[in-house]
Amino acid sequence: MTMLAITGGRVLRPDLTVTSADVLIDQDAGEIREIGTDLAGAADETLEAAESLVTPGFVNGHCHVAMTLLRGYADDKPLEAWLQEDIWPAEGELTAADVRAGAELGLVELIKSGTTAFADMYFHVPDVAVAVEEAGLRARLGHGIVTVGKDGEAAREDATTSLEIAREYDGAADGRISTAFMPHSLTTVGSEYLAEFVPEAREAGVPVHYHANETVDEVAPIVDEHGQRPLEYAAEHGLLEPEDFVAHGVHVDESEIDLLAAAGTGVIHCPASNMKLASGMAPVERMLEAGVTVGLGTDGAASNNDLSMLDEARDAAMLGKLAADDASAVPAEAVVDMLTRGSADAIGLESGRLEAGAPADLAVIDLEQPHLTPRHDLVSHLAYAAAAADVRHTVCDGQVLMRDREVLTLDEAGVRERAVETAASLSARVE
Amino acid sequence: MTMLAITGGRVLRPDLTVTSADVLIDQDAGEIREIGTDLAGAADETLEAAESLVTPGFVNGHCHVAMTLLRGYADDKPLEAWLQEDIWPAEGELTAADVRAGAELGLVELIKSGTTAFADMYFHVPDVAVAVEEAGLRARLGHGIVTVGKDGEAAREDATTSLEIAREYDGAADGRISTAFMPHSLTTVGSEYLAEFVPEAREAGVPVHYHANETVDEVAPIVDEHGQRPLEYAAEHGLLEPEDFVAHGVHVDESEIDLLAAAGTGVIHCPASNMKLASGMAPVERMLEAGVTVGLGTDGAASNNDLSMLDEARDAAMLGKLAADDASAVPAEAVVDMLTRGSADAIGLESGRLEAGAPADLAVIDLEQPHLTPRHDLVSHLAYAAAAADVRHTVCDGQVLMRDREVLTLDEAGVRERAVETAASLSARVE
Ligand SMILES: [Zn+2]
Ligand SMILES: [Zn+2]
Repeated sequence: MTMLAITGGRVLRPDLTVTSADVLIDQDAGEIREIGTDLAGAADETLEAAESLVTPGFVNGHCHVAMTLLRGYADDKPLEAWLQEDIWPAEGELTAADVRAGAELGLVELIKSGTTAFADMYFHVPDVAVAVEEAGLRARLGHGIVTVGKDGEAAREDATTSLEIAREYDGAADGRISTAFMPHSLTTVGSEYLAEFVPEAREAGVPVHYHANETVDEVAPIVDEHGQRPLEYAAEHGLLEPEDFVAHGVHVDESEIDLLAAAGTGVIHCPASNMKLASGMAPVERMLEAGVTVGLGTDGAASNNDLSMLDEARDAAMLGKLAADDASAVPAEAVVDMLTRGSADAIGLESGRLEAGAPADLAVIDLEQPHLTPRHDLVSHLAYAAAAADVRHTVCDGQVLMRDREVLTLDEAGVRERAVETAASLSARVE
Repeated sequence: MTMLAITGGRVLRPDLTVTSADVLIDQDAGEIREIGTDLAGAADETLEAAESLVTPGFVNGHCHVAMTLLRGYADDKPLEAWLQEDIWPAEGELTAADVRAGAELGLVELIKSGTTAFADMYFHVPDVAVAVEEAGLRARLGHGIVTVGKDGEAAREDATTSLEIAREYDGAADGRISTAFMPHSLTTVGSEYLAEFVPEAREAGVPVHYHANETVDEVAPIVDEHGQRPLEYAAEHGLLEPEDFVAHGVHVDESEIDLLAAAGTGVIHCPASNMKLASGMAPVERMLEAGVTVGLGTDGAASNNDLSMLDEARDAAMLGKLAADDASAVPAEAVVDMLTRGSADAIGLESGRLEAGAPADLAVIDLEQPHLTPRHDLVSHLAYAAAAADVRHTVCDGQVLMRDREVLTLDEAGVRERAVETAASLSARVE
């Protein structure tokens, strides 16, 4: 057994209290063995955490990680025009090697901002999986299906790919990779494909993940065509199981909030993306009150424009207050919970809590910063003031992915260089 | 003449184009002498800016910088309750030495996040001025007046203090400090004091700065009592001159936007504070369309909870889109302009543009970061993706305040330590 100790830090516990303690990790099992005092002696290796906050690694519940290639490529446009005029044409040019380069850039960014697990919907998923395996992160991956505008054969092929990927990669990278069946959204995948493939996904034992109720324009067609709210339609098509999770949930009404709560289906709130695309304000306070499992996600870098979950936490607290017209709504404790346990529960991982037996996924945050001084309340600091660059060390599955800001599993400079070259080549191809 | 050259960077010009150039600074005059190629030879000292963006120093148009002491002290409460139950009782205990300690902490944070100038409303202003003088920043300072709940003598004394401070400190610190007469808001200062003191402020040649139209609760009493919109009332009381600037401007109607545009009075938009206190969404796109000079401010750290203007820029772009229900509203170019030239113009400084003859106030941002890769658009990166920790060097009035993340004018560790002690002592006194 190889043991790692995180020493001298202040540890954020599942009840959101903070205690001075060491964290002892069984690296072979990838698990936390013990949280207590003077545990350094039992360890083969230590990570120093003095004047630092040891927190569960952040869980990014909805991402398209390779879209880092399109960061700043097209901003300040509404969702539909942005997708059709800029993003889809560019994505149409992406090769598997391009996706790998973009994914690696995104993974470096995730590691450097303290994120240890994420859910990702994209294409060329085997190349994303290779990047995840080498990066050492935990991920739930899936191939995003779009059937509208495709003939039957191409549509079935896309759905088949998603199913096959979900089957083949579940449990990959020593179990760090899990999968989901991922229809892009309720309006971009025909109901006949849901009827055919969702039962197969159930049989394969994987959850279903899709975008839902993101914009008003996405709700109206379902109401018009089916006379149902989108999540009612989703439930009827078997897409609202306890293991499933939807992205966004901006325009959900009370009946849909009740449906989500009753079903146990998670919602990944993406406040930055929802603001940047002017999609609207998700009723997060109402969802939390109703008992919905709410997590946080960055969405892709093109609509954010970074992958820092600490930005997302701050945005969630702020936007949640505005949406509720109540400054006491979505308080610091709620966003810290969403950032860690909430996202992990929503996407079906055991991560997101620091306790004996839990996965050893964590981040160590340097508190010796002017913007984290004084220290009236460390949970407040995590929600409102901490930034990506404050993360000193990142540990996933018991392995140190970043030590003192140096990423150990990927060559950061090389990854950045390849991303620059890939983005330049992509821009040239699109023109 | 002592010359400083910023070499090898990419320089953000006033028209928001970016060119590869050196920046040559006359340190004695505190001015930019030239922007061009191969200027290092003419310099006594150089700051290296390879793979970096040289941008105007950010201008924080509305702050209460000593409130860093109350960062995380009380979160998640509505404005009125937060002020009355938490902030004012704590502020009532603040000594001049406490304010100095809090201000120094805030100034370290400003320097480390690339801000070179700010407007500040607080009390114990002479102690804030001493901190600004040693920090090397540029500031417009003022004593905030509250007359409600005070007897006539105490109220006049408060207004007199604000006037005297404005007279005495204007031009201090070799001209880096300017001042303003600062009634706290239109509802917390009686109109008789405005009638008496504002003409004296005009005679002293200083602008007037106040909070306006921040919350619905602040608008209603003026409408009820005076039958006027707040900014109509402000204009009638001589508070809407071209040199004046108001903070917030959240609940302004079309007639007030027109008043602001016609008067040339600046508005400092504080998106993070407005979200955190659930105050509402300022109609920034409408104000920009109408020709209002709009700048950005953090407000105090207690309602933010940091003083990074890059956060404010991102928040402004995102909230502006939501307010306008239009993803093309408040684009990256507009927020970068507000962050620099807009704020400077609003608070009456020549800073905020990099060109020959302009004040040598600038920040150098490290682009070799995963979240700033690739580089489709550097203006987009500044608006959406750059973070405080990416700032390498900060220069104000030609002097280097931070080099390679090391603050040169203040002892950062000592400042943090004093702030921790002061905050602990304050908490003990309030209890
Ligand atoms: Zn998405
Ligand atoms: Zn204020």
